[in-house]
Amino acid sequence: MTRADGRENDELRPIKITRNWLDHAAGSVLVEFGKTRVLCAASASTGVPRWRKDSGLGWVTAEYAMLPSSTHTRSDRESVKGRIGGRTHEISRLVGRSLRAIIDYKALGENTIVLDCDVLQADGGTRTAAITGAYVALADACASLGERGALKGDPLTGSVAAVSVGVIDGEPRLDLPYEEDVRAQTDMNVVMTGDGNFVEVQGTAEGEPFDRKLLDALLSLAEKGCADLTRIQQEALRG
Amino acid sequence: MTRADGRENDELRPIKITRNWLDHAAGSVLVEFGKTRVLCAASASTGVPRWRKDSGLGWVTAEYAMLPSSTHTRSDRESVKGRIGGRTHEISRLVGRSLRAIIDYKALGENTIVLDCDVLQADGGTRTAAITGAYVALADACASLGERGALKGDPLTGSVAAVSVGVIDGEPRLDLPYEEDVRAQTDMNVVMTGDGNFVEVQGTAEGEPFDRKLLDALLSLAEKGCADLTRIQQEALRG
Amino acid sequence: MTRADGRENDELRPIKITRNWLDHAAGSVLVEFGKTRVLCAASASTGVPRWRKDSGLGWVTAEYAMLPSSTHTRSDRESVKGRIGGRTHEISRLVGRSLRAIIDYKALGENTIVLDCDVLQADGGTRTAAITGAYVALADACASLGERGALKGDPLTGSVAAVSVGVIDGEPRLDLPYEEDVRAQTDMNVVMTGDGNFVEVQGTAEGEPFDRKLLDALLSLAEKGCADLTRIQQEALRG
Amino acid sequence: MTRADGRENDELRPIKITRNWLDHAAGSVLVEFGKTRVLCAASASTGVPRWRKDSGLGWVTAEYAMLPSSTHTRSDRESVKGRIGGRTHEISRLVGRSLRAIIDYKALGENTIVLDCDVLQADGGTRTAAITGAYVALADACASLGERGALKGDPLTGSVAAVSVGVIDGEPRLDLPYEEDVRAQTDMNVVMTGDGNFVEVQGTAEGEPFDRKLLDALLSLAEKGCADLTRIQQEALRG
Amino acid sequence: MTRADGRENDELRPIKITRNWLDHAAGSVLVEFGKTRVLCAASASTGVPRWRKDSGLGWVTAEYAMLPSSTHTRSDRESVKGRIGGRTHEISRLVGRSLRAIIDYKALGENTIVLDCDVLQADGGTRTAAITGAYVALADACASLGERGALKGDPLTGSVAAVSVGVIDGEPRLDLPYEEDVRAQTDMNVVMTGDGNFVEVQGTAEGEPFDRKLLDALLSLAEKGCADLTRIQQEALRG
Amino acid sequence: MTRADGRENDELRPIKITRNWLDHAAGSVLVEFGKTRVLCAASASTGVPRWRKDSGLGWVTAEYAMLPSSTHTRSDRESVKGRIGGRTHEISRLVGRSLRAIIDYKALGENTIVLDCDVLQADGGTRTAAITGAYVALADACASLGERGALKGDPLTGSVAAVSVGVIDGEPRLDLPYEEDVRAQTDMNVVMTGDGNFVEVQGTAEGEPFDRKLLDALLSLAEKGCADLTRIQQEALRG
Repeated sequence: MTRADGRENDELRPIKITRNWLDHAAGSVLVEFGKTRVLCAASASTGVPRWRKDSGLGWVTAEYAMLPSSTHTRSDRESVKGRIGGRTHEISRLVGRSLRAIIDYKALGENTIVLDCDVLQADGGTRTAAITGAYVALADACASLGERGALKGDPLTGSVAAVSVGVIDGEPRLDLPYEEDVRAQTDMNVVMTGDGNFVEVQGTAEGEPFDRKLLDALLSLAEKGCADLTRIQQEALRG
Repeated sequence: MTRADGRENDELRPIKITRNWLDHAAGSVLVEFGKTRVLCAASASTGVPRWRKDSGLGWVTAEYAMLPSSTHTRSDRESVKGRIGGRTHEISRLVGRSLRAIIDYKALGENTIVLDCDVLQADGGTRTAAITGAYVALADACASLGERGALKGDPLTGSVAAVSVGVIDGEPRLDLPYEEDVRAQTDMNVVMTGDGNFVEVQGTAEGEPFDRKLLDALLSLAEKGCADLTRIQQEALRG
Repeated sequence: MTRADGRENDELRPIKITRNWLDHAAGSVLVEFGKTRVLCAASASTGVPRWRKDSGLGWVTAEYAMLPSSTHTRSDRESVKGRIGGRTHEISRLVGRSLRAIIDYKALGENTIVLDCDVLQADGGTRTAAITGAYVALADACASLGERGALKGDPLTGSVAAVSVGVIDGEPRLDLPYEEDVRAQTDMNVVMTGDGNFVEVQGTAEGEPFDRKLLDALLSLAEKGCADLTRIQQEALRG
Repeated sequence: MTRADGRENDELRPIKITRNWLDHAAGSVLVEFGKTRVLCAASASTGVPRWRKDSGLGWVTAEYAMLPSSTHTRSDRESVKGRIGGRTHEISRLVGRSLRAIIDYKALGENTIVLDCDVLQADGGTRTAAITGAYVALADACASLGERGALKGDPLTGSVAAVSVGVIDGEPRLDLPYEEDVRAQTDMNVVMTGDGNFVEVQGTAEGEPFDRKLLDALLSLAEKGCADLTRIQQEALRG
Repeated sequence: MTRADGRENDELRPIKITRNWLDHAAGSVLVEFGKTRVLCAASASTGVPRWRKDSGLGWVTAEYAMLPSSTHTRSDRESVKGRIGGRTHEISRLVGRSLRAIIDYKALGENTIVLDCDVLQADGGTRTAAITGAYVALADACASLGERGALKGDPLTGSVAAVSVGVIDGEPRLDLPYEEDVRAQTDMNVVMTGDGNFVEVQGTAEGEPFDRKLLDALLSLAEKGCADLTRIQQEALRG
Repeated sequence: MTRADGRENDELRPIKITRNWLDHAAGSVLVEFGKTRVLCAASASTGVPRWRKDSGLGWVTAEYAMLPSSTHTRSDRESVKGRIGGRTHEISRLVGRSLRAIIDYKALGENTIVLDCDVLQADGGTRTAAITGAYVALADACASLGERGALKGDPLTGSVAAVSVGVIDGEPRLDLPYEEDVRAQTDMNVVMTGDGNFVEVQGTAEGEPFDRKLLDALLSLAEKGCADLTRIQQEALRG
């Protein structure tokens, strides 16, 4: 059984990382996982939230959102509804935690970096694209802070990337587009560091609960995907 | 006195209209007025709001918003604040009214078109760029509805474009970028139809109140700018 | 063609300005444009908003609202809905900007004046009545601050008044009551200083877009109306 | 010991009831208890809330609010804060319950009457003034519904009035203005029907808890005040 | 006529007060009035609200809420609705006022005690159970603060308890369960100190307005009930 | 190295499941994992959400919340803040998904069951206790629906339980109390069916990212814990 877009089960969609997509932000990346397009912007500011003041430590946080027109059918604007939905909250928190896993707060000093991940077009895997792109924007923002002499060291202790894996028609597959995502019996998002350790593992049985063997297979597939993404991130940062 | 970007006082910034920037929306345009970049997406759906049901008439509305990272200094996300600010409300209403000025509701039939104008990068004139781009997205959406046989006639009675004019150092100037906008004594946004009539005139004395003569000069400058934009819209729609 | 209330096309409705309508506020005015009745209260307090602290400059702001029972059909209370509507926001901002156009912040010193404009009865032209009345309340509040020795000079650099003009059955008319307002093809609100300069021009084609000639006629009519209102304000302040 | 305004302990402030203060509402009253001024408007509409549909019964409800400028020091607008405060909620519910006590829902038929009680100026006793004025507005609205043939009988089973009583310097006093209210050890609001029965009794020890004897004295004082107010309401309705 | 649960008209339901139901709070009580179960927790913290800073005085406040599953039919969660209802607000304020009636702010010093009264199961009389239980939790919290040396004296000037009374089928009854509550023509909540004085009296004619004689009978019944509750509180605190 | 409470690394805290803790709900359970106490109530109602109407399928959803007094230091009430926090949203969604994994919607018919999981006392592992207890309440509610003849079959396709595992001082441990939770380098919540399959796996590196070997050890520990909990659930349901 082959995939609708002709990919192998362990193959990523075409990944494209465009740096400096915006003029104002300290770092900005348009990341594309196939048709999924996320604009990741890193804004740096002096100072930290109140609860962290005078600690000498920096802070990194993230906000994820989807444009109303990004989805197949237009979705309502959360600012108009006056509330952020549960899914948005959850992903914003996930992105923030993932990036903080590779941050040395002391080296960052009392600076705050906010990562805005705005989904311009959604075709599955928006949260994993957001994390993968946000890391590159964060790296650019750190470099820019460093050039301005605002840092006490290198705040990056490594890199981070994320990928989705899932089971479709009984087969583990890597990097699901929307049409596979809706059909997946099991859906897992995995965030890993560039040196191959796990930051987050979030697996959900959408249909049938899954056994340990399948879980192990999905984890291995995710390890492969994150390794590929790490290489692409490094190329983009060299480019 | 020349302008910082070398333009004449009655000259537009480089205008770029990219159609079909998204895959899902009925019409979508990335419009650029210099560094100002607005993504305008038209989503069409069958049916109309409740207050208009069974009238045989369609509806067109718009929502304008800025990405947090679009501004020179990051601005807070309105969905997180849980409220839409006054400015956002005001511009959303302006964009909606401007587009409705050239709509034949009967020909549209009981369809609703929502125009989402999301500012990806802000460098002055975001609301006028939004209107100018939204018209093109709307035209594409109407064409697409027409091809699907969902219309009762041509819903467009004309075209619409918008431009800002202002007084800087005593001189009337066309299409202000951010750095001129903040220095303007008077700021006016003018929305016009393609055949040269006015849809909206909104002038504000930011500093000194202005006399009738200056008002007349600004209106003439806006007439010139809207005519130029109309030509660019037509080229884009032909292209 | 004569108007339903027997007025000439360039004639204001009976205007009544009652000063000191309240006992507590620094300045308070009940302003009536025919059946439209707006209570304008100016509350002065020491200090300025945070973003303006230690600047030596004062601040003037406004809030506009309609009582639920002010309209022909009862409207829902915005405090109960938990949100201020777009129209309310827009008019509050307009009133604030209009008054700030004639304020010398330095002379005001670090004082804040809030203008509350509450519509007790609405019969068209509530925003223009609000601005016209609020100026008188503001003048009284400034006088009261001056008597208390709280000012560094005269904060008023002039006066401000506002009027609506519109096109009904093809004819430009001044100061539209509700029944004309709903029938207007074009509707314009104009704010002017007492010495005849423009502060705000907001024209909207409700139906047909309008040409330059009609726009010029409306502006001239508004100039006439604002001059009349300025005279009435001056009489009220002398009275 | 005499009161600051020269009244006897069992004497009401000057009460003034002006009917038909507004042009649109089915009934409208400006009620004044000394300097306290409340605008009470009754809006009638066909139909009832969903939970009461097809019951053949009507509904009466009330909303109480204070204008920001009504208080000695300007208070924040609840629509701007986006929330109704506890006190506002509580008084709105009290006014509604008080009026419903004298309503025959069957005679009212499936009509809804909303009583808007907006405090234009507050000098103590705003809730009792609101109830007292709202009854008169309600009576006018019922009369107007009756004239239109919209009723199945007389919806009023009696009248209702309310007054505050309190203990100041150990002495029970009737109808407290603001300056007495803030000094009261005990504060009680009593709502009674025109034929001398109790609808609501709400007593609070602001300072010292009170004994049964004092409670009895306050209740007797309230009975006297409500009888006086009933007479004034009847005169106003005859006038 | 006997009551459905076999009680005399002046008899309380079985009352149970379980202290230290929680491990973390300074004082915590599970109070039961028959099937009505309220968890009352007193949390003490150093410092007072901003408006009371540097006064040397403490503060006591309360929040009342019902679990969605506490009622006969599940009720919506107020946190999900994003608003606290009028009834919740009103009762929270009542509980706070009732407890503050027996507090010596000076002896409390600049400490704040928050009483959370969460209804686990509702069967009538939840607000009176809350007050009665909250007093015991407050007493425990004060004792615990005293042991830590955080007080300047004994903050309790007495005790406080509350009970509901009502008229069912013409007969005054004490401590109404849900099935009596919904049938009551008149419903009164009375808060009293341990030495027999009144803190709050809140009576409402749900159906027929009530005369003075009935009001007097209800007050006497409440005096009896509060005296019984005071005795039970004292036993619990000794236990 | 032994644990503070004397447990083995692969040992659960004392687990206690008390059924029918409430009188009104279709199913209700007080579940205790050591000091963590969660009240799980299942409310059944006829009908389903609008988007599921006329499908013949039922629905199960959940809401999780913490009482303010449940935590070591009192936390603010979300209903008062007017917003549900990200964590609350996330856990509510997790509980709902977990229970839906073992539901046969067809057998449930067009009934909705809401699981309210209110944390009365929090000492780590509240979400896993909630899921474990909610399953038992859900089973009781299904039994009760079945007795009433409201079902089309057995809606339960299995059972579900959840446990937390984490790495403290380099050692994998089962069922973390608060004091271990805050010190955990890695924290994982695992939801499993009674027959040993995975429903949810959520692992987070709080400190150091973790390698595959550690991940595998944690998963095995969770399998052991869920098997133990399944046995305890079965005993409770038999009891």
